[in-house]
Order: sequence, then structure tokens, then C-alpha cells
Amino acid sequence: MMRDLSNDRALISINSMTVKPWSLEQLVEGCARAGISAISPWRDIVQACGAERAGKLIRAQGMTVTGLCRGGMFPAADEAGRRAALEDNRRAVDEAAAIGAQCLILVVGGLPKGSRDLAGARRQVRDGLAALLPHARQAGVPLAIEPLHPMFAADRACVNTLAQANDLCEQLGDGTGIAVDTYHVWWDPELAREIARAGRNILAYHVNDWLVPTTDLLLDRGMMGDGVIDLRAIRAMVEAAGYRGHCEVEILSAENWWKRDPDEVLRICIERHQTVV
Amino acid sequence: MMRDLSNDRALISINSMTVKPWSLEQLVEGCARAGISAISPWRDIVQACGAERAGKLIRAQGMTVTGLCRGGMFPAADEAGRRAALEDNRRAVDEAAAIGAQCLILVVGGLPKGSRDLAGARRQVRDGLAALLPHARQAGVPLAIEPLHPMFAADRACVNTLAQANDLCEQLGDGTGIAVDTYHVWWDPELAREIARAGRNILAYHVNDWLVPTTDLLLDRGMMGDGVIDLRAIRAMVEAAGYRGHCEVEILSAENWWKRDPDEVLRICIERHQTVV
Repeated sequence: MMRDLSNDRALISINSMTVKPWSLEQLVEGCARAGISAISPWRDIVQACGAERAGKLIRAQGMTVTGLCRGGMFPAADEAGRRAALEDNRRAVDEAAAIGAQCLILVVGGLPKGSRDLAGARRQVRDGLAALLPHARQAGVPLAIEPLHPMFAADRACVNTLAQANDLCEQLGDGTGIAVDTYHVWWDPELAREIARAGRNILAYHVNDWLVPTTDLLLDRGMMGDGVIDLRAIRAMVEAAGYRGHCEVEILSAENWWKRDPDEVLRICIERHQTVV
Repeated sequence: MMRDLSNDRALISINSMTVKPWSLEQLVEGCARAGISAISPWRDIVQACGAERAGKLIRAQGMTVTGLCRGGMFPAADEAGRRAALEDNRRAVDEAAAIGAQCLILVVGGLPKGSRDLAGARRQVRDGLAALLPHARQAGVPLAIEPLHPMFAADRACVNTLAQANDLCEQLGDGTGIAVDTYHVWWDPELAREIARAGRNILAYHVNDWLVPTTDLLLDRGMMGDGVIDLRAIRAMVEAAGYRGHCEVEILSAENWWKRDPDEVLRICIERHQTVV
């Protein structure tokens, strides 16, 4: 019989974007205070703290790090830009290793400035991933390709479906996997099929909600339960595919959640994780 | 040898949303003044004019009507709602026939209020189309299923890819086809394959552009050439699939193009049609 995970506080992870006002130190302390034992920081707060020091703080609290956000942004207008992106990605891998992250989340990048060549950008992403992979394998940091919603195809990620991410994993092999974020994939007619196909390649599962109306493409994500995504159905899909990891709450919300007291935000995340995720 | 259509003013059509301040009478007169001989009105201005009278005006100017926008919105929370939608769609078919439209554009609808059942909404769309089809066939009005960008899955259309639209056409058969709108499909990794698959089922081709940044999901579309869509490449795909119809300019732009003089907007549409579409 499958374990009912829905009421397990141990399986919630907090992405630092959900409590954006907090530093890494505050994130670690705030989550510990709330009884949450997993986090997923963005690089800005890790770098502000220093990756080595961040790793020590996290280990001292016994925290799980479900991912480091984010590497990627591979395409560039010229070779120098692509090389700079690769170098930055190698540093991201090292930071992920330093804090013991289970994976490095990759927002792969969109069109280079001035370009309309989407197929070309997608080839650059594949080539960038292939170039980064040896370093990531050596460091023991799995690369989690995150398909982003098609509305970000131009400026953030030209990998826009789970099918594309699965294809990339098949091409690139060991050391690559997928981050499934409900906000980005809930609309996909092939969702069930492609989650099943991803199987054990699912490295991270991000939860949040799609609000109606959505007033900003990037910064108006909803708290789980406030929107239209059937979160229980998608969670059942990822668990049926073999995923046994955390539900990582990632809510970019400039006008609502970022303006609230982060301790209150965590309380609501826990409640919603228990009732609707 | 394929005819070079790029400089042919006879192949531009103006959707009424591009010149939103205009009534149907103004649209017909304004387009005639600009040397444009094809339009695609939304139902609001057709109804304000009266469908029979609109048809007479349009025929008197010798205008082609590349489509009537729009039917659809099939899903509803209950049977009464679905019946009302079907009745309204039958009236839309009649209006399309009255103005001699080449097709009725369908924005199929999203989730019923309070629902998170996207697969169920998609079934309601298929059933609604099947129920409408006999009336449309009898009236000689082809139904053009328009896949909308995935960011509209919740509130406007749960048909979000050309693959879904092609599947529906295969299931429903004669009297159905597809409207390809560059804004909605440009990101699709399967674009070339699914346009080729659509073939002669392409009933309408809508052009516009994706701006970076896009500041509003619905009302910030760009003029052709101002964004990142490779319009020439997509036009080559639809022509290779056998499409020989118009390029219909549909730009919903509350903060820019709707605030300009519609005669100026038409001049720029013509120029961009010649240079970048």
C-alpha cells in the first residue's frame, strides 16, 4: 500500500523565493522554528552568506537542501557569452555541492538578445548542458532541468514542456533529471504521460498555484489552494512515477506573499501542504 | 515555384480587435480607404450593426471576411450553462453565415467556475463542438478551433496546442479546422510537425508578435516585427502545409495600438505585412 504522505510535515521544503525578505540565516532559523527541515535557497542568499558558511549553518541545523536555484541561462549571442554562462554554471555546481543540495535547478535560458531563433536557442541549451555535465557528475550534483511555462520561452527558458526535458535527459544521460513545477506544467495535455515517462528522473517537485486572474507573468503566483491547479492529482502522478522526495513551496508573489510576515507565510504553507497538496 | 506572397496587399486581413475603437461601418470604410479588402470582425461590432446589415455593407464593398470572432466557451458548471453556450454558438454560426465569413473562430473556453478539472473541461469542449457541428455544416460555416497560449488554459481556452486541435479535427471530421495564431503557438516545440499535420485544415492564419517584456497576458500583444516571433518561418510552414489564405492581423494592445489613430495603425500593419510577415 502506498504511504499517505499528505500530512507529513517532514516532506515540505521551503524555497527561499517564498519568503523573499529573508536572508539564508533567517531562512534556516525561520524554518527550524516552524518545524520545517528542508529548504531550497536561491544563489543570491547563498552568496551573500558565503557558500561554505551556508553549508555549515545548514548542516548544523540538520536541514535537507532539496535544490539550489538556479543555474542555466545557457544561450548567448556569442561564444564569449556562452563561455561566461558555462563558467557561472560551474560555480553554481560548486555552490550546490558546498551546501549539500540534492540537485542544481536549471532555468535553461531563452532567446539571446536580438535573436528570433528559438530552435537555435534550444540547441544551445542542449550543448550547454552537455558541456556542464562532466563537472556536475564529478561534483556529484545532479542537474535538474526545469521546464518553464511557455510564456517564459523568450526570456527565461526555451524548454517549455516535460516532453522536451525528458528528451534532453534521454540524450544526456546520467547526472540529469527533471524539476516538475506545478505552475509551469499544469496546463500540459501530455502531463500524465510525460510525468510517467520521467519516472525516477524527477529530482524535485515544486508546488504553488495558478491564480485567475494572473496579473503578472512572473511575480503573481498563488499559494497552494488559492488557484485552479489540481495539486492532489499532480502529486499522485509524481508519486506513481516513483518520486518520494519533498514538496517544495516556491511562490513568487510581489504584491501579496512577499509583503507578509514570513513566519505567517510559513504557517500557511504548512497548513496548505497538509490540506491541498 | 512557390509564389512570393510577401508583398501582396491583397493577402492582409484586419481583425477588428486591431482597430478596437472602430465600429463595423468604420472598419469596412477604413480598410477600403487603405486598400485592404479583407476583414475579420468580432461579434460585438457585428451585433451592434446588425448581422444582416453588416453582411450588406461588407458585400457592397466587395470585402472578404476571413473569419468571425468568436464562438466557443463551451464548458460550464452545469447542463443549463452548456445548453446556453450551445445556443449562443448556433447564433454565432448564423451571424458568420450572414456576413459570409470563411469560418467561425472558436475560443473554446477554459475551466468552469470553481472547477480544477482540466481534463473534464477538455471533454466538454469536444462534446460542445460535436453538438454544434451539425448546425455549422448545414449553414456552410467551417468551425476554426484556435489553440490558445497555455497561459489562457484556465480562463479562455483549454485547447492549448496545435496537437490538441489536430486531434479534435481528426475526431470530429468534416466542417472543422484550425486557426493558427502566431502569438499562441510560436513557442511550441512541435510547431513545424503539427502545422504540417494540420495541412489543408488550416482555415485562418493570425499574425502579431510576442513582446519582451510582455506586461499583460491578454492585452499586450505586439505589432509584427516588434517582438521575437520568427514570422517568416511560421508563414513558410503554413504555406508549405497548403495554406493560401490571408494573414489576419490581430493585435490586442490596450496601452499602445488601441490608443493610436486606427488609420495610422492600418498603415503600419500594411508596412509590416510587407516587410516582416
